[in-house]
Amino acid sequence: MPSTSGACFTRGPSTLHVPRELHVVNRRRLCEKLRAVLGSSAAGSFVVLQGGPSTTVYCSDREPVFRQESYFHWAFGVEEPDYFGAIDVDQGLAYLFMPRLPSSYAVWMGQLASPEDVRARYCVDKVFYADSIAEALRELQARTLLTLRGKNSDSGKMSMEAEFPGMDGFKVDPKPLFEVMAELRVFKTPLEMEVLRYANRVSSEAHKEVMRRIRPGMHEYQLESLFLHKCYGDGGARHVSYTCICCTGHNGAVLHYGHAGAPNDSTIGDGDMCLFDMGCEYYCYSSDITCSFPANGRFTADQRGVYEAVLAASRAVLDAIRPGVSWPDMHRLAERRILEGLRSMGVLKGDVNAMMEARLGATFMPHGLGHLMGLDVHDVGGYLSGDPARPTEPGLKSLRTARTLQAGMVLTVEPGCYFIDVLLDEALESAKLKDFLVPEVLRRFRKFGGVRIEDDVLITDDGHEMLTQVPRTVAEIEALMSERPTEERSVYSTAPC
Amino acid sequence: MPSTSGACFTRGPSTLHVPRELHVVNRRRLCEKLRAVLGSSAAGSFVVLQGGPSTTVYCSDREPVFRQESYFHWAFGVEEPDYFGAIDVDQGLAYLFMPRLPSSYAVWMGQLASPEDVRARYCVDKVFYADSIAEALRELQARTLLTLRGKNSDSGKMSMEAEFPGMDGFKVDPKPLFEVMAELRVFKTPLEMEVLRYANRVSSEAHKEVMRRIRPGMHEYQLESLFLHKCYGDGGARHVSYTCICCTGHNGAVLHYGHAGAPNDSTIGDGDMCLFDMGCEYYCYSSDITCSFPANGRFTADQRGVYEAVLAASRAVLDAIRPGVSWPDMHRLAERRILEGLRSMGVLKGDVNAMMEARLGATFMPHGLGHLMGLDVHDVGGYLSGDPARPTEPGLKSLRTARTLQAGMVLTVEPGCYFIDVLLDEALESAKLKDFLVPEVLRRFRKFGGVRIEDDVLITDDGHEMLTQVPRTVAEIEALMSERPTEERSVYSTAPC
Repeated sequence: MPSTSGACFTRGPSTLHVPRELHVVNRRRLCEKLRAVLGSSAAGSFVVLQGGPSTTVYCSDREPVFRQESYFHWAFGVEEPDYFGAIDVDQGLAYLFMPRLPSSYAVWMGQLASPEDVRARYCVDKVFYADSIAEALRELQARTLLTLRGKNSDSGKMSMEAEFPGMDGFKVDPKPLFEVMAELRVFKTPLEMEVLRYANRVSSEAHKEVMRRIRPGMHEYQLESLFLHKCYGDGGARHVSYTCICCTGHNGAVLHYGHAGAPNDSTIGDGDMCLFDMGCEYYCYSSDITCSFPANGRFTADQRGVYEAVLAASRAVLDAIRPGVSWPDMHRLAERRILEGLRSMGVLKGDVNAMMEARLGATFMPHGLGHLMGLDVHDVGGYLSGDPARPTEPGLKSLRTARTLQAGMVLTVEPGCYFIDVLLDEALESAKLKDFLVPEVLRRFRKFGGVRIEDDVLITDDGHEMLTQVPRTVAEIEALMSERPTEERSVYSTAPC
Repeated sequence: MPSTSGACFTRGPSTLHVPRELHVVNRRRLCEKLRAVLGSSAAGSFVVLQGGPSTTVYCSDREPVFRQESYFHWAFGVEEPDYFGAIDVDQGLAYLFMPRLPSSYAVWMGQLASPEDVRARYCVDKVFYADSIAEALRELQARTLLTLRGKNSDSGKMSMEAEFPGMDGFKVDPKPLFEVMAELRVFKTPLEMEVLRYANRVSSEAHKEVMRRIRPGMHEYQLESLFLHKCYGDGGARHVSYTCICCTGHNGAVLHYGHAGAPNDSTIGDGDMCLFDMGCEYYCYSSDITCSFPANGRFTADQRGVYEAVLAASRAVLDAIRPGVSWPDMHRLAERRILEGLRSMGVLKGDVNAMMEARLGATFMPHGLGHLMGLDVHDVGGYLSGDPARPTEPGLKSLRTARTLQAGMVLTVEPGCYFIDVLLDEALESAKLKDFLVPEVLRRFRKFGGVRIEDDVLITDDGHEMLTQVPRTVAEIEALMSERPTEERSVYSTAPC
């Protein structure tokens, strides 16, 4: 076992120090699991992973800031492009293969690291150059290479499978690794949890600052910009986990608003409801938080009604989640609370059980209740073999997992209620749904947008740990929004590395 | 000619409004040039370009914010992925081919635009769906498709050439388009110049705010974050033209510092020199500005000495540039001024002509004096056929163009002086160079880092127009850095669209 003393990732004394031991633990878990799966054929089996490559923007020479591929990061934590990594399953030894950089690198990019520098930095057993990977693996007596081949259930895309010259000199087995790694990624270790807690703390503080500083008349992207600045400048988080969704007014009815075609560019109106879904990542670990609040800091009666319906859904789910609970059941629980709220506001009428039976919930919450979260914001492991299949009913079919909860999982809990024209029009024309709707009241909400309340939680043995720390009740939100903006200062402090 | 009245790109009333006519003009220029090149075969020839595709981060479903491919943007200005575009060279008519999006798009991504919406938005003659591109081109009586095939001289990568099902039913000619488009991109139109001026203004203001707010003890990335925030929050510039280079102290000797392997994470020391090279882009048009200044706001004698040597180089070049001047000559002029400065400081000794002859300048300025700038920060057209070839001498060989200047070109002027250990060590051991060096003085500069002064200029008929507006003299910098930070406010104002 290589020494990990002192080796850590950090962005300075006021940011989190992440021990590289995190990856040593992950690799140990991987080897244990693979030995159990492979039995006697573990001997001579080497996991081989390829890290993310250098890229440029189209044919230009502009290089985007590198972000490591998530499986590779989980195993090795390497921050730079063009690496390979290998793990001797039987011996539990780890190797990195670094790019051989030209001497001009020292002039343009910085000091050239030696293999020994890299070995010490990343706490592996030995480091070779990537151009000698086939030769090195032969020397290490690798016989079977276990590569990563599997489909991401959110994107439908295949994982990046290692490929290098000379690979055809080995037996390659792409079967066992993917499901084993994806399943291990579902369950976060204590060291990983520390990073997820930190990312959530940084994002929570940034959301609070956005709420303090927002004013009608600003543009949505100005709050996106502020969020990014708080996360990076105060928290050292250079990347976000996903494109910021900064909806105000009727934009709140567009679930993934914020992309280049809907780029957070509306002017914020005085009576608008805001739905800001933003999360930073730190050391590739995600956060994913949505805050909904009135732009001017005071809820109207309608805003309060919708908000409190969603909050009731959120709190009901948080009260219920624990190991053994089915995630689709939690989705249904959230739907029920939202439908109850809409009925008490007079938007809906009739029997809530009947509404549930007719799947009316999907009209107001077309997305799933939440998803696994980790190195990817929509994290892997949602639909592995042996897990419950994707539901087919409206709303439920959008769930990114249908698993039964277990301790160590991290998920978002993000009930929402939206007034989406196309879905409302469909419902008003649906024989099954139209009788539940009160069109003359519903009309008032056509430009409302939506409300989402999204928290990140760790499932614990007896319930959950809440990672997100933002104001949630109407009173808490109105109190925070009446505060003066904080002075420029760092709000994070942790022990030095 | 489609009407362009009112159609423009903007990020709100306080940001620049860019008339879509910009692309109408570009396409007109392209057709004129192609008709001259093609002669009688222009009839039935259609330029066909492919816009940038949707992408995700590795196999996840996370989509980075889309940025259009630069040639496609030059011709069409389309802000969203998965488009094709075509131009009937003879008739001067323009067509777009938009992706056919599923109806669920309205729920997740926003209102579905119709072909007529897109036509009006982008001022083209007609819009089809991309899945019918072959059929549409046949209807339009396209016979020869002119595609974009050529190598970017900075990256060595090939341009993205259009490819679509059914393309084999047409004659495809990839020869004339690339050089024609690249050459047209070198010369900026008045409408393009407005955008470049604006991007430069936004970046200039952001640099000034960084200078006002920097304090020893901060981390470099905190200033990167502030720069990004000022550009986006105040200027509506969501992207930067390149990764921010925020060097302090000896990091200033790493030319492309700031990437993931050297991520602007040093603590800023009290006596450090700073070298901040940062530029935003607006509507895909770049800016590229470097400011060098002492972290604590007061130059030491050594800092002033190096800074003023580089400033002398910068001002000498700015005094000299005009149409007809050779860019490599400007590089040599800058070198000469820097060597003179270093000699007057006692770092060098001997005859400057002899130093020039020995190419000593490349020890202290290994990069080129500057580069073309436009839709790419290192813009295209540096080494087209018929242009002067890339020089081979040290320093000069790093030039991204060796062309003779012409009115309408936009370039960076960025002389620099660095104390790079590997290059100093090489020079100290070089028979040709070592006698010019004064080792006992040079030793004092080993941890100095570097100074770069980078401005963006438009070549005009009688000289240049300066686009960059930041303090440049020692007195100006010290005065600005003693100012209090500005209040949060927008500093841009332009006429509404």
